[in-house]
Amino acid sequence: MYGLIGKFTAAPAKRDQLLSALTDGSQPMPGCLSYVIATDPTDENTIWITEVWDTKDNHEASLNIPWVQAAIAKALPLIAGMEQVAETEPVGGHGLEVAS
Amino acid sequence: MYGLIGKFTAAPAKRDQLLSALTDGSQPMPGCLSYVIATDPTDENTIWITEVWDTKDNHEASLNIPWVQAAIAKALPLIAGMEQVAETEPVGGHGLEVAS
Repeated sequence: MYGLIGKFTAAPAKRDQLLSALTDGSQPMPGCLSYVIATDPTDENTIWITEVWDTKDNHEASLNIPWVQAAIAKALPLIAGMEQVAETEPVGGHGLEVAS
Repeated sequence: MYGLIGKFTAAPAKRDQLLSALTDGSQPMPGCLSYVIATDPTDENTIWITEVWDTKDNHEASLNIPWVQAAIAKALPLIAGMEQVAETEPVGGHGLEVAS
């Protein structure tokens, strides 16, 4: 498995618009086992995204899905910063769900 | 929802034993929607744990479940460090699965 922990900083006052851009119209992505979008109670501009994929290849392929590209295009102007906190190798747990 | 992103450092050469302590005998926990344990390809002693719970109360209650307490007792001597990277408020995504 392949995992990502990312910390995004929204442009000032744009967090909720960014959340909508990331969640509206989202559909199952092949190989995506978990994808959690979260706000941060200590910082009104921070968004955490934690992801688990069956393979790194499927994560990379997802970036070419037309609706994902449209979401990225909508999100980019709303993002002030992106930090990849970790690339991980998930070994197990709960809530690793094959998209159906 | 209530989320946690944690970074654990295993005692030297104890990572795999720590992974076993955290995963062996694990059972569904009430209110736990996602619980992912991952290694870090850049550091052989690091373990990432990302969690999503329906409520913070259910997370706290889980620490009193007997098998969880037994796992913690087994894990503690294998842990050199714990960093709570973030407490989050998950807003949605994929793989948020009610334990059955």
